[in-house]
Amino acid sequence: MTLRVYLSGEIHTDWRDQITKAVTESGLDVDFDGPVTDHAASDDCGVAIMGPEDKKFWHDNKGANLNAIRTRMGIEKADIVVVRFGAQYKQWNAAFDAGYAAALGKSLIVMHQAEHQHALKEVDAAALAVVETPGQVVEILDYVLNGRLPG
Amino acid sequence: MTLRVYLSGEIHTDWRDQITKAVTESGLDVDFDGPVTDHAASDDCGVAIMGPEDKKFWHDNKGANLNAIRTRMGIEKADIVVVRFGAQYKQWNAAFDAGYAAALGKSLIVMHQAEHQHALKEVDAAALAVVETPGQVVEILDYVLNGRLPG
Amino acid sequence: MTLRVYLSGEIHTDWRDQITKAVTESGLDVDFDGPVTDHAASDDCGVAIMGPEDKKFWHDNKGANLNAIRTRMGIEKADIVVVRFGAQYKQWNAAFDAGYAAALGKSLIVMHQAEHQHALKEVDAAALAVVETPGQVVEILDYVLNGRLPG
Amino acid sequence: MTLRVYLSGEIHTDWRDQITKAVTESGLDVDFDGPVTDHAASDDCGVAIMGPEDKKFWHDNKGANLNAIRTRMGIEKADIVVVRFGAQYKQWNAAFDAGYAAALGKSLIVMHQAEHQHALKEVDAAALAVVETPGQVVEILDYVLNGRLPG
Amino acid sequence: MTLRVYLSGEIHTDWRDQITKAVTESGLDVDFDGPVTDHAASDDCGVAIMGPEDKKFWHDNKGANLNAIRTRMGIEKADIVVVRFGAQYKQWNAAFDAGYAAALGKSLIVMHQAEHQHALKEVDAAALAVVETPGQVVEILDYVLNGRLPG
Amino acid sequence: MTLRVYLSGEIHTDWRDQITKAVTESGLDVDFDGPVTDHAASDDCGVAIMGPEDKKFWHDNKGANLNAIRTRMGIEKADIVVVRFGAQYKQWNAAFDAGYAAALGKSLIVMHQAEHQHALKEVDAAALAVVETPGQVVEILDYVLNGRLPG
Amino acid sequence: MTLRVYLSGEIHTDWRDQITKAVTESGLDVDFDGPVTDHAASDDCGVAIMGPEDKKFWHDNKGANLNAIRTRMGIEKADIVVVRFGAQYKQWNAAFDAGYAAALGKSLIVMHQAEHQHALKEVDAAALAVVETPGQVVEILDYVLNGRLPG
Amino acid sequence: MTLRVYLSGEIHTDWRDQITKAVTESGLDVDFDGPVTDHAASDDCGVAIMGPEDKKFWHDNKGANLNAIRTRMGIEKADIVVVRFGAQYKQWNAAFDAGYAAALGKSLIVMHQAEHQHALKEVDAAALAVVETPGQVVEILDYVLNGRLPG
Repeated sequence: MTLRVYLSGEIHTDWRDQITKAVTESGLDVDFDGPVTDHAASDDCGVAIMGPEDKKFWHDNKGANLNAIRTRMGIEKADIVVVRFGAQYKQWNAAFDAGYAAALGKSLIVMHQAEHQHALKEVDAAALAVVETPGQVVEILDYVLNGRLPG
Repeated sequence: MTLRVYLSGEIHTDWRDQITKAVTESGLDVDFDGPVTDHAASDDCGVAIMGPEDKKFWHDNKGANLNAIRTRMGIEKADIVVVRFGAQYKQWNAAFDAGYAAALGKSLIVMHQAEHQHALKEVDAAALAVVETPGQVVEILDYVLNGRLPG
Repeated sequence: MTLRVYLSGEIHTDWRDQITKAVTESGLDVDFDGPVTDHAASDDCGVAIMGPEDKKFWHDNKGANLNAIRTRMGIEKADIVVVRFGAQYKQWNAAFDAGYAAALGKSLIVMHQAEHQHALKEVDAAALAVVETPGQVVEILDYVLNGRLPG
Repeated sequence: MTLRVYLSGEIHTDWRDQITKAVTESGLDVDFDGPVTDHAASDDCGVAIMGPEDKKFWHDNKGANLNAIRTRMGIEKADIVVVRFGAQYKQWNAAFDAGYAAALGKSLIVMHQAEHQHALKEVDAAALAVVETPGQVVEILDYVLNGRLPG
Repeated sequence: MTLRVYLSGEIHTDWRDQITKAVTESGLDVDFDGPVTDHAASDDCGVAIMGPEDKKFWHDNKGANLNAIRTRMGIEKADIVVVRFGAQYKQWNAAFDAGYAAALGKSLIVMHQAEHQHALKEVDAAALAVVETPGQVVEILDYVLNGRLPG
Repeated sequence: MTLRVYLSGEIHTDWRDQITKAVTESGLDVDFDGPVTDHAASDDCGVAIMGPEDKKFWHDNKGANLNAIRTRMGIEKADIVVVRFGAQYKQWNAAFDAGYAAALGKSLIVMHQAEHQHALKEVDAAALAVVETPGQVVEILDYVLNGRLPG
Repeated sequence: MTLRVYLSGEIHTDWRDQITKAVTESGLDVDFDGPVTDHAASDDCGVAIMGPEDKKFWHDNKGANLNAIRTRMGIEKADIVVVRFGAQYKQWNAAFDAGYAAALGKSLIVMHQAEHQHALKEVDAAALAVVETPGQVVEILDYVLNGRLPG
Repeated sequence: MTLRVYLSGEIHTDWRDQITKAVTESGLDVDFDGPVTDHAASDDCGVAIMGPEDKKFWHDNKGANLNAIRTRMGIEKADIVVVRFGAQYKQWNAAFDAGYAAALGKSLIVMHQAEHQHALKEVDAAALAVVETPGQVVEILDYVLNGRLPG
């Protein structure tokens, strides 16, 4: 069984690298997918390919729809969707992805620090696991695949 | 044709009342639904009915799951889901609802002030209409039902 | 059994009126739905409610998405979708609606003159009935509801 | 991640070859599918295999249904559906395919010249990207797969 | 709870009348639907409305597709689909309806005489009840609605 | 909003009556459905209508399939499925109903005494609310419909 | 593109062998599936594995349900379902499979001699191709895969 | 055709090993999946990875939700779900899995001793095969794949 895991949310820390590196080292059978994490490319992809816009709204609209090709496909094909909320920013697209995944019946893992617990209570309640660290995600993947627990 | 409209998101201003009042005055055939907007009840409903919890996480979990009975049913039965993002707070549950509605193929209307435009670009891109005021929502409902435009 | 029938396509002749009038006279139990047929309103609804655009593309985009709230809901709730192709114009939205209805498994009736037969062969092949006149649509509705044939 | 891309629409220019050649040269991981583009074979396949018809309608009906085996399967299995509208002809089957793909929730890319913008506004509004050239499609595929932007 | 029941299959005896009459007399809350049972109308409806055909195949094709508007809608909206196989004829459309209903997850009741048991074993195995008489169907409807057993 | 609630599980105490009576007294807008609760009728319905069987397995098979017409329809139409596990018996059909409801995405409320907590942990985890008394179910329905909390 | 083709229906002639042999010789990329065609095994599989039954009805029921594991899986995974009606027998399971495939939206090819045309009109009308010989099925598969026509 | 088989239920005997060993020896093309069968790990996985809980309810809730990632994915991807009920314990999760699989339309095989027949009648009625031994499951898999009967 190969697990398909989509890593959604925060793009300013290296949490995706931590997970994929640990999974590779553990030899777990996991295929990862996720959004484009180059912030500038993600913001400007629409106008870069389809031409400039005067209004910021349409500049962003073109980019967001282009990114949606990748993100929706990734979520729809995933067995597990991990959504990480970082320490700052609104991160509404992370919550949007979580809602999207929940409506599709995907197994949802939410990652965030304790300080955001109350604000994320609806998102957490839709999840099958709520964790704080990339290491815990790796432990979950190992358990789901092999029934192996840490320590 | 009776429209079923779910009003999701911000609960600290009277935007729902503005919409429902104007719709009633215009005689539009719309049934509205939405979350429980009594903040204290919404936060504490789980423990009030199913008993107290020591940990805030489970206190919130019980409440969020209980509220989910109402919110998911409301979104699933709606023809149109309106999601309003207010001036403050994280409002991740609003973005979660928007993602949930989008994945179900619901017609999505997003309402927010211009200052949040960039942060909401993915949510806006999933919407069929992006507006700033309750009055615009009423105009949309009037147009969808009757083909009538303002002015 | 009340039939829900969506009348899609050409908006420059009175074919919808002919059908609804004949159905009313015959006392058939049918609820009709269809797009906004006021051409100017349909073209300008987006900017009229959500503000003007410099580019024609976005002017049209706002309007088309707003109209989609009504047209998709109408098609999704319909038992039967009738799509009429008139004598002129590209009418790509009519063919789009036909494809949309076909993918949802709706019973599709296509109406057009003989001259368009070859160009519409894929659309016709997806239909359960291909007719030329509003009167034939009424006869079909009467047969489907009551097993009654003309003459 | 292998992308499955269905190339629908106009069959009189070499736009499919341009895309597939550029994708191959770039080493992108894409599987392409599309309709039979031999116009004569596409028109006559039904009677060639299942016997002649006196009426053009049934000649076309047999062919269109046979082609539907391939086109619907291709659209249903695709991650992305690209629909190109050329400079001439009614091309109702292209718009039909776009509607079919939209109803299935496929990521839709529409390609056409500026002159058709207004007539295609409903189709464009259902798309996640609207482009004019095969090169832009290739750039989109490269971005979706690798997050790489042109230039 | 109103039961929607579709009565498919044999049209040469009065089994539908027996069921609907007994249900009315018992005051059961059931809405019945079924195919057009006027054999001549059912055979000729297509050409009567849409014009004559030289070939029997297309004569029948037009009629069968027109009848499909009614039969598929009836089956799709039903809670229970009753399919009766009579003493004679091939009745492939009855078996087709049973397969159609089974694939949609409808509750299937099959009615036939003992002599057809072996030939109908696949159809019977897909059913939740296999009966011989209209009276047994009525007893089932009474039990499903009211928990009431005969005698 | 009328809630449709299916009351599954234990049939040897009057918990359904307690809920429906309290709901009626409170004037809540709820339609209840549930299995046939006459144990003897439920066990023997198959053979009573469709004839006797020598083997207990087929006696039970006929009855269970007949009851499935009612129970599956009830669960599929419900907004909320309440499943009660009583103090005794295996009650595998209650757990089966819970799994069936969960797979359909229904809002699940589970009711049982504390002593069964560990054995029911998978069922409880799939629920949006876990309660011990009929009164708590009524409080939940009142909250979901009216946002009203007890006391 | 590998086509998955399910070959349903008549088991007393070698039509399946003719198709698979010709497809192999032509090097077409097709995976075939179908029912168990050993008539005795198919009839007795249930009792052979799960023990004997006194009544023919349950003997057949056990076998038919066991065969359903294979046939439904085969139809559900198929891109194309070919259903052949032979010269004799009731063949209700063939018509059942056709209805099952149609309800799932599978591309349906029906094969039968001219003499059965009228009796099969509903089944034919649900098909995308109606043929008489195995050779025509092979020609269709070649055309769907390669756009190649016979001769 | 590779069969995907999910082995649900009782974890205190070696029935899974018996099946997988026999299938390997017979060279059958089957991929097996199932829950984590290490009882202690299964009970404690939640707290081991996500931190301890004072209340047994939440200890179990964390574990059950984590296990649900694996069990639901396994059932959803399976062609056949085998559910074994052992001689002791409540085994409500086994019945829950059976209901879950039934609602998804999976082919269900139930395994249990004769003594549980009456209590499992609803579960058995939803199954396509009811057996007592692992050997019978292997015989079924061999028949489904190869049409081969024992002896």
